[in-house]
Amino acid sequence: MTAAAVPALVEKAREGDPRSVGRLVSQVEDESPLLPDLMRALAPHAGHARIVGLTGAPGVGKSTSTNALIGELRRREHRVAVLAVDPSSPFSGGALLGDRIRMGDHVLDPGVFIRSMAARGHLGGLAWTTPQALRVLDAAGFDYVLVETVGVGQSEVEVAGQADSTMVLLAPGMGDGIQAAKAGILEIGDLYVVNKSDRDGADKVRRDLRSMLGLAERREGAWRPPVLKTVASKGEGVADVVDALEEHGTWLRESGELQRRRVRRARNEIETLALTALRRRWGTVGGGDRLDDLAAAVVAGETDPYTAADQLTG
Amino acid sequence: MTAAAVPALVEKAREGDPRSVGRLVSQVEDESPLLPDLMRALAPHAGHARIVGLTGAPGVGKSTSTNALIGELRRREHRVAVLAVDPSSPFSGGALLGDRIRMGDHVLDPGVFIRSMAARGHLGGLAWTTPQALRVLDAAGFDYVLVETVGVGQSEVEVAGQADSTMVLLAPGMGDGIQAAKAGILEIGDLYVVNKSDRDGADKVRRDLRSMLGLAERREGAWRPPVLKTVASKGEGVADVVDALEEHGTWLRESGELQRRRVRRARNEIETLALTALRRRWGTVGGGDRLDDLAAAVVAGETDPYTAADQLTG
Repeated sequence: MTAAAVPALVEKAREGDPRSVGRLVSQVEDESPLLPDLMRALAPHAGHARIVGLTGAPGVGKSTSTNALIGELRRREHRVAVLAVDPSSPFSGGALLGDRIRMGDHVLDPGVFIRSMAARGHLGGLAWTTPQALRVLDAAGFDYVLVETVGVGQSEVEVAGQADSTMVLLAPGMGDGIQAAKAGILEIGDLYVVNKSDRDGADKVRRDLRSMLGLAERREGAWRPPVLKTVASKGEGVADVVDALEEHGTWLRESGELQRRRVRRARNEIETLALTALRRRWGTVGGGDRLDDLAAAVVAGETDPYTAADQLTG
Repeated sequence: MTAAAVPALVEKAREGDPRSVGRLVSQVEDESPLLPDLMRALAPHAGHARIVGLTGAPGVGKSTSTNALIGELRRREHRVAVLAVDPSSPFSGGALLGDRIRMGDHVLDPGVFIRSMAARGHLGGLAWTTPQALRVLDAAGFDYVLVETVGVGQSEVEVAGQADSTMVLLAPGMGDGIQAAKAGILEIGDLYVVNKSDRDGADKVRRDLRSMLGLAERREGAWRPPVLKTVASKGEGVADVVDALEEHGTWLRESGELQRRRVRRARNEIETLALTALRRRWGTVGGGDRLDDLAAAVVAGETDPYTAADQLTG
């Protein structure tokens, strides 16, 4: 692809052509040199989608819940995109078979776009590939963009940080209380959903979670994360979840928190891009390698790393 | 502490006063504003110690092995410092009780200094606190500095990257082959030690490891990591480990790899300090917050993150 092809591709993606949307996400995933052009072309059209993060330990039913959420959002006539980020995979996420299976009931619905993306971790990985892929889907006119992490741990928290609203999924029988506290998810959830709530122990998970959330001090006017229950495989409770998401959307806008969250995300994105650019520049200044020269001086005891860093940043 | 007190403190640490060495490590751990002064004062005296990284999954006997290594190094009349880095702990690692237990047989030996350090993760965490703490111990005149990670995963690999030589510990009965491949430790070890080698399965671990290591292509003249066995609790095999470490030290110097590794580490350290300084600067330019202004423009769709990043680094 060349820079000249960018405007036409962006135009087709905005008209809802799924192949063009997919090609744009691939450009992000592949860390294409055209990304600055693409983001420049997309920027004026972004900012309208509701970005919802879905996170939770393996086994809580994330894919089933996503599938059920898509169904409910489609009933309400929203266009829906899903971005499944796999921070652990070194392989391309454009795996068609996996995405088709994930699409479940929605494989033929033109109002639904589902795509998985590997976060290879070059040059910052998740921190900048995710927001750029979300910008693609946002600018392509989807009303809801669900971002789901595959995998566990810190990366889930990071992906949640990319969303306007974060939904944390739990399920009975997984020692969830402790898991929750450990993973720091008590701080990131705007909405908690106990899935598989027809199973033993679901009420206990809900109760424990509510009491843990109740311990957190919240300012007046702050959002109090609801704890809902679903049986996603049967669609039970899913409409309530979407109601809660829409309520949270209203609160985000009215409280000013939406703007604050989006500015914080844009800050991180800009900062990561700036630091990446600087690291490239420092590696090859004036044909030589300035950082290598400074490093050799530190190793020789001729200077110290602080003085060297000052020289680098001028 | 004030900047005026720096030269005297550094002088006392270089004379071998353990309290002064400990205070310097605390300054690093606490991310003291005096660090640039301290590093400037220490830089000319560093570069003589052999930095050895110890890594391995919980349960392989890291503390016992460290204790046995200290004993053998002391028999050879080396002064030894141990830095135990705990990347997961938010608490100060200057915990005296823990360190005294860790010192084991060496609590009264003035040629041994043991210190644990929390890596709080402010402003880059491990990436710059570890090299600075190692610089303190190096400049204080220890012949060997062992850096040991508490915890698991990526942070172990990071800590190993701070050492001249990295020793990977394994033990039978822990599914080590698979663990090894997963954690990427097959790439980081200069020396592999199967501890608890009087237990069932030790020979199999050794064999599996050797065959996995044998698959790696190595250039001519490259170091071939030996796979040794110990029973650290009885001191068995420990002299062989120290012999192998000294052999690796000779190879590092003669092959030029020592210089390459140290330059690479200094590069990372300088880069991290430079990026930290820039992030601070971007946060507060001209009394306002330049990054916030750019982020708001990105959110409004008035600009894109690449253009914003260019403006920041301009």
